[in-house]
Amino acid sequence: MPATFAPSLSPAAALLPAFAPWFDLAGLGVFAASGALAAAKRGQTIVTLSFFALITGVGGGTVRDLLIGARVFWVQDARAAATCLLVALVIWITPQRWWSDRALAWFDAIGLGAYAVYGAAKALTYGVPPVPAAVMGVITACVGGIIRDVLAGEPSILMRPELYVTAAALSAASYVALVELGTVRLVAAVIAAALGFGLRAIAIHYRLALPAYRGLR
Amino acid sequence: MPATFAPSLSPAAALLPAFAPWFDLAGLGVFAASGALAAAKRGQTIVTLSFFALITGVGGGTVRDLLIGARVFWVQDARAAATCLLVALVIWITPQRWWSDRALAWFDAIGLGAYAVYGAAKALTYGVPPVPAAVMGVITACVGGIIRDVLAGEPSILMRPELYVTAAALSAASYVALVELGTVRLVAAVIAAALGFGLRAIAIHYRLALPAYRGLR
Amino acid sequence: MPATFAPSLSPAAALLPAFAPWFDLAGLGVFAASGALAAAKRGQTIVTLSFFALITGVGGGTVRDLLIGARVFWVQDARAAATCLLVALVIWITPQRWWSDRALAWFDAIGLGAYAVYGAAKALTYGVPPVPAAVMGVITACVGGIIRDVLAGEPSILMRPELYVTAAALSAASYVALVELGTVRLVAAVIAAALGFGLRAIAIHYRLALPAYRGLR
Repeated sequence: MPATFAPSLSPAAALLPAFAPWFDLAGLGVFAASGALAAAKRGQTIVTLSFFALITGVGGGTVRDLLIGARVFWVQDARAAATCLLVALVIWITPQRWWSDRALAWFDAIGLGAYAVYGAAKALTYGVPPVPAAVMGVITACVGGIIRDVLAGEPSILMRPELYVTAAALSAASYVALVELGTVRLVAAVIAAALGFGLRAIAIHYRLALPAYRGLR
Repeated sequence: MPATFAPSLSPAAALLPAFAPWFDLAGLGVFAASGALAAAKRGQTIVTLSFFALITGVGGGTVRDLLIGARVFWVQDARAAATCLLVALVIWITPQRWWSDRALAWFDAIGLGAYAVYGAAKALTYGVPPVPAAVMGVITACVGGIIRDVLAGEPSILMRPELYVTAAALSAASYVALVELGTVRLVAAVIAAALGFGLRAIAIHYRLALPAYRGLR
Repeated sequence: MPATFAPSLSPAAALLPAFAPWFDLAGLGVFAASGALAAAKRGQTIVTLSFFALITGVGGGTVRDLLIGARVFWVQDARAAATCLLVALVIWITPQRWWSDRALAWFDAIGLGAYAVYGAAKALTYGVPPVPAAVMGVITACVGGIIRDVLAGEPSILMRPELYVTAAALSAASYVALVELGTVRLVAAVIAAALGFGLRAIAIHYRLALPAYRGLR
């Protein structure tokens, strides 16, 4: 019994804010869908769709849990894996036209904000200091999509012209800042998720970008 | 105190089925060979061949061990690393014509079934519930090859038209199902590995594929 | 006792050689710079530059810490993350001509030797046997650059014609060998880092390579 993690639910996890499960589910479902679609567009089987949905849905949270020393959330609790498989099945049996790139980008924006807040909240619960906790939020929100793109052989989400990591960082950092300032955690979470979603929405709609590095100096 | 590792050899590891070391070695050797060959074909040195052999050979098992909270199997026990280095040396000094793509695909099919069963068996031993345990089998079998392809800049094994993840999933799921039904573990292992190997063999030979997603609906 | 997650600073970490922080900082700063530059060349924002700097700077050490069962060094201690963000800022505000590919290759060579030695030293401190400890040095030195290349969609550093992994392996293996032979650790570290840097320097200057696999036999 090499890793005796706490018997069923760790005290730290029990302290997670009440909003946490909903934010977690939003991120999980949306990223699982984007993973399943990446496989579907490449003509894969339902099994590969499911595997892609799982990796994309749980990838960011897995890296976060390993980094903060938490139990990997989906290994002992089959519900997360079941959600990913269900999402893959839904993608498989529904018409492709339901899932346009544009619709996906909007879903993804919701998941991005929700997951960034959830990741930062979980890291704070595990005693991670504010700055690394905000980084954990960014990792939770971005790593699933990064893995999906790398596996699908696409240019990584990190390299897209629009604000992506930046939106996740806004959500994660503003949640941590608001909590440190004493804001009620649910309020902080809603504000922070909305900020990240809003920035991403503006970026999608106007193809807005922060000043990019030009090296002109 | 999230992870306390047991002193030298964990009771869980001691409970691994008797067949486990052989299945582990089969997967390790075959994947190490495929990693070494990927580097060899790109004109690398013996050192890079060895590094590739190691990453590909132990990659899947490493991710599995991190996820289930086990000690990473090859870090404290030098035999796995030594096996990978030996395999790299054999690839280096033998004629290239011994190692055709076709021969490799067949070796890989053996490793795939063996590693999927071993991964699922180890996860069950560590108290992982059936569904995530089957996923651990798939991860053990597929992640080494995924890492190899990503590092070599090739389209990931996940994206190939033939059944690959699906064959690993068949082995892992049927092992878990047979054990849950009370089958003797050695028997379950041989049947499950044979099923996955068989499906992969059919896929290689007939270029068979499960119905792929077409999005025609 | 590979991983006792001690409350604040583990006894193992406290036993790290006195030179360790400097070698760690050299590797961290140089790899963070190379990551920030990879993002800068692709016209990214300061936030993405920072994220890239962080992943590249701490990536190798993160994988090493997970493998040897240590606490991930930068999660509880904000200084490493702060260094990466600072490096990203410096890259952002300085003229691009300061950062030629050639200058970078030389910085990278310094980081490579330093990080290989640091990784091997930390692994030895955690009771990892000599051969896997040397592998940990190679992983610490190479994985950050590998992740950077994969995320940037470039051919992995592993596949470049010049000696790269080989130089890291020389540093890591010679450090372990010298320590096993009873050399004072600071002396062993300086010699080993110089050997790896020297080999890499020769490789850069003369485009030297070890005999590559040709498969002519």
